[in-house]
Amino acid sequence: MAFDAIETPFAKINQIVGGSATYVAYAASNFTQPIYQVSIVGSDFPQEEMDELSGRGVHLEGVKIVPNKKSFFWSGRYHMDMNSRDTLVTDLNVLLDFDPELPESYQDAEYLMLGNLDPKIQMKVIKQMKKRPKLIVMDTMNFWMEAAMDDLAEVLKLVDVLMVNDSEARQLSSQFSLVKAAKEIMKMGPKYLIIKKGEHGALLFHKEQVFFAPALPLEEVFDPTGAGDTFAGGFIGHIARTNDISFENMKTGIIVGSAMASYCVEKFGPERLKEISRADIDSRIQQFVSLVNFDIELV
Amino acid sequence: MAFDAIETPFAKINQIVGGSATYVAYAASNFTQPIYQVSIVGSDFPQEEMDELSGRGVHLEGVKIVPNKKSFFWSGRYHMDMNSRDTLVTDLNVLLDFDPELPESYQDAEYLMLGNLDPKIQMKVIKQMKKRPKLIVMDTMNFWMEAAMDDLAEVLKLVDVLMVNDSEARQLSSQFSLVKAAKEIMKMGPKYLIIKKGEHGALLFHKEQVFFAPALPLEEVFDPTGAGDTFAGGFIGHIARTNDISFENMKTGIIVGSAMASYCVEKFGPERLKEISRADIDSRIQQFVSLVNFDIELV
Repeated sequence: MAFDAIETPFAKINQIVGGSATYVAYAASNFTQPIYQVSIVGSDFPQEEMDELSGRGVHLEGVKIVPNKKSFFWSGRYHMDMNSRDTLVTDLNVLLDFDPELPESYQDAEYLMLGNLDPKIQMKVIKQMKKRPKLIVMDTMNFWMEAAMDDLAEVLKLVDVLMVNDSEARQLSSQFSLVKAAKEIMKMGPKYLIIKKGEHGALLFHKEQVFFAPALPLEEVFDPTGAGDTFAGGFIGHIARTNDISFENMKTGIIVGSAMASYCVEKFGPERLKEISRADIDSRIQQFVSLVNFDIELV
Repeated sequence: MAFDAIETPFAKINQIVGGSATYVAYAASNFTQPIYQVSIVGSDFPQEEMDELSGRGVHLEGVKIVPNKKSFFWSGRYHMDMNSRDTLVTDLNVLLDFDPELPESYQDAEYLMLGNLDPKIQMKVIKQMKKRPKLIVMDTMNFWMEAAMDDLAEVLKLVDVLMVNDSEARQLSSQFSLVKAAKEIMKMGPKYLIIKKGEHGALLFHKEQVFFAPALPLEEVFDPTGAGDTFAGGFIGHIARTNDISFENMKTGIIVGSAMASYCVEKFGPERLKEISRADIDSRIQQFVSLVNFDIELV
């Protein structure tokens, strides 16, 4: 949970709430409640945001508020393609002290989503779960592959589903072909691998199986910040709601995640996620059905 | 119909048969025969290739053989990503004299596929058809947008389906968003637009409708030369076989084209296309069904 400053070729905002856990919670709370949030913020983090999350069934006992310190701050500028970006500022602030402590009330959680963060911290959360969750999903990024590969490798051994983007999958596996990359990565621990390709959709791999979900072709991407986390939140939210960790159900989870991400990019930060209803989500999922559905009888 | 010399990071071939019309014919002949080929070659073009095409129901009366001249020759080198390439040599040779003449026997053709070529020549073929075909599909490329935009604009007014890749769609429309690009291009004439995105699949646009077909995730792309033409051949072949020009059937046509293209890239030039059977094609189409199929009931 953090603050972001975002610049796109079309608009700019100096401060908006962000952070993986924020996006995951907003997305997942449409499908499952309660959500047990683990994070750390400074005294600057707005109470209204906490209240909004609480109102959506997001428990905040595991969110540490550090007095007289600032929340994590990231600032970035998107290029014309809205796909690549430059990081302008990263102020770790409270993240420097983050030593997650799981409240006793969190031990019931059956599904664990580890947002992108130092793998040491991800590991600490896993280790504190007395009963192994039914499914552990993990996001990470290239930074940790370069700065903390040994720690990352240890966490990878313990998770069920890894989510990375295409260039990260290539970096982690040293393979250019995503099919070959998936095979290598699944040897490192995760039995399922989701490769996010931004505007080109997402791939789900499991053993010899593969599933592809497109991204919705959009007229405009206003702000892609948080789209990957929102995707993750929709995915784990759907899995938790249906309580079904089969490959078949993960396919549907990816469509749900893609639908949520397609809303996320319509406004700055998580703003759009706060507005949408279950009916909006259903209608967008129907668009995905139309987008990929074809009549095999005709072939 | 031409010769190519192809270099990839992994292999090299100094001469192999190529050309849009060759790939289109090999792909389409799996679905519909006869095919009425219009092209021009030199006296160096191999008789065995002509015989192979004839054996697949490809009529060659409209293929002019120019004595003592050489066939069109293209040579290119693919980059590591197998997506981008440098052209090393373009020898127009007989193409300089190409003035297509449609034999009387070709007038029955109900479906017209215009391979990528000078729009002036594409126009000449359209104008020679006494009865307007049920569907005119056209491929083109960025070169003609730069060198012959006025001629291209005239042809666009007369065709039903345009096929271009994503960067060409952006160039032709001056729009970055592919959804906006599609809207602009459909104002130029084509009622249907297919945007090919290589390893990222293909989009079909028609009015407010959109369909997305993924490319099959492959372990290896051996040689992408001709994949786009093979896609076109599979598409028009399916449409001709089913004699159905609805949007719904075009979706299936795109899956068929994608399946054919996924075979094309497995060997140099059209080699792989010559080997595969109808059973091979069916099995690959089934892979596309598995790749994108999800259970909407679960959502």
